[in-house]
Amino acid sequence: MCPPALIPYKPKNPKTRLASLLSEEERERFAAAMLEDVKAAVKDALCSPVLICTELFDSEDVQVTITDADLNGSLNAILPQSLGPALIIMADLPLADTASVRRVIGTDKDIALVPGRGGGTNAIFMKDPPKFHVDYYGASFLKHKKIAEDAGLSVDVIDSFRLHTDIDEEDDLVELLIHGTGKSRAYLEELGFVVETDAGTGRVRAVRKR
Amino acid sequence: MCPPALIPYKPKNPKTRLASLLSEEERERFAAAMLEDVKAAVKDALCSPVLICTELFDSEDVQVTITDADLNGSLNAILPQSLGPALIIMADLPLADTASVRRVIGTDKDIALVPGRGGGTNAIFMKDPPKFHVDYYGASFLKHKKIAEDAGLSVDVIDSFRLHTDIDEEDDLVELLIHGTGKSRAYLEELGFVVETDAGTGRVRAVRKR
Repeated sequence: MCPPALIPYKPKNPKTRLASLLSEEERERFAAAMLEDVKAAVKDALCSPVLICTELFDSEDVQVTITDADLNGSLNAILPQSLGPALIIMADLPLADTASVRRVIGTDKDIALVPGRGGGTNAIFMKDPPKFHVDYYGASFLKHKKIAEDAGLSVDVIDSFRLHTDIDEEDDLVELLIHGTGKSRAYLEELGFVVETDAGTGRVRAVRKR
Repeated sequence: MCPPALIPYKPKNPKTRLASLLSEEERERFAAAMLEDVKAAVKDALCSPVLICTELFDSEDVQVTITDADLNGSLNAILPQSLGPALIIMADLPLADTASVRRVIGTDKDIALVPGRGGGTNAIFMKDPPKFHVDYYGASFLKHKKIAEDAGLSVDVIDSFRLHTDIDEEDDLVELLIHGTGKSRAYLEELGFVVETDAGTGRVRAVRKR
């Protein structure tokens, strides 16, 4: 089995919630490094990465470019044409590893949903994609669960913090510094980020030292 | 196998980071409801809950009361006396379920560590507790990994968002409302908490309606 791993990706001005810590160019390089980590994990799990972009992106990856649609529109144009199982996985999951991706695509249910922090959906594996459609934004996990159930599809919820942890804002960076092993962690370290413990509260955060 | 599940618990004035949303009495009832959820999960996984408290607490649970020690001191007084495997699990993990606890105690390594959000350690399973000691606060996950490795113990890191999600602050409550199934979710709903999606940002949070 070698299903496509559809990875929505925004090459220009990504991760704006990190703008107070990273310049636009740094955010673009950081997003690209996270994408590399996700691609490495899905490839090791024997999926074929396919980038879903709103503009052409300079890479050797297979790309589907849909310029006039949002995330939902893009994916919902692709799913009905899928002939076999497919994975959708977000590009900002640099803690993804082979084992966690394998648990997703190895489900014995019709659909596997991976919840993201804050009600989101970080990955979806569909054995028969034309029977499903996506509805991202807001509490998408609950929406996706209902869409699957309404379509009579059995649902597996994958219990993984590695796939739950999307890197969106400052508080998330420390997760990557502690649990990451790939290119995006290395890039954060290259930029001077370290893990620091507040002596008073004992709380841990990522601090940029230069 | 029926190992003890040591659960540190603070019955008085717990969860102060939720003080802007919940009164002291509500925080005490909420913490007690979360404890019930954790106890249900560990019991279903065939562990025996043992509460580790700094003061006597009105319950029918087995309790170890250590009044003059902090969390580390309390646990490090108990571990050397343990004759068989033991689990330490935090009381603020209401998303814990039987499957996730089973993955922890079913490890084939000497120690299983469950990372918590922000560098913490939410659960530790030790096959031979006298060989280990705990060092909570700060980036305890990294400290515990090092303690195990220095003691020559093999380490398993359990990849579970259900056990990763400790309920400490406002942003965490929405996780419980979305993924919880037990008493603490019911108590939040009883208090009037609902999931709300910000129309502008699409971000989801828990809002108290009354």
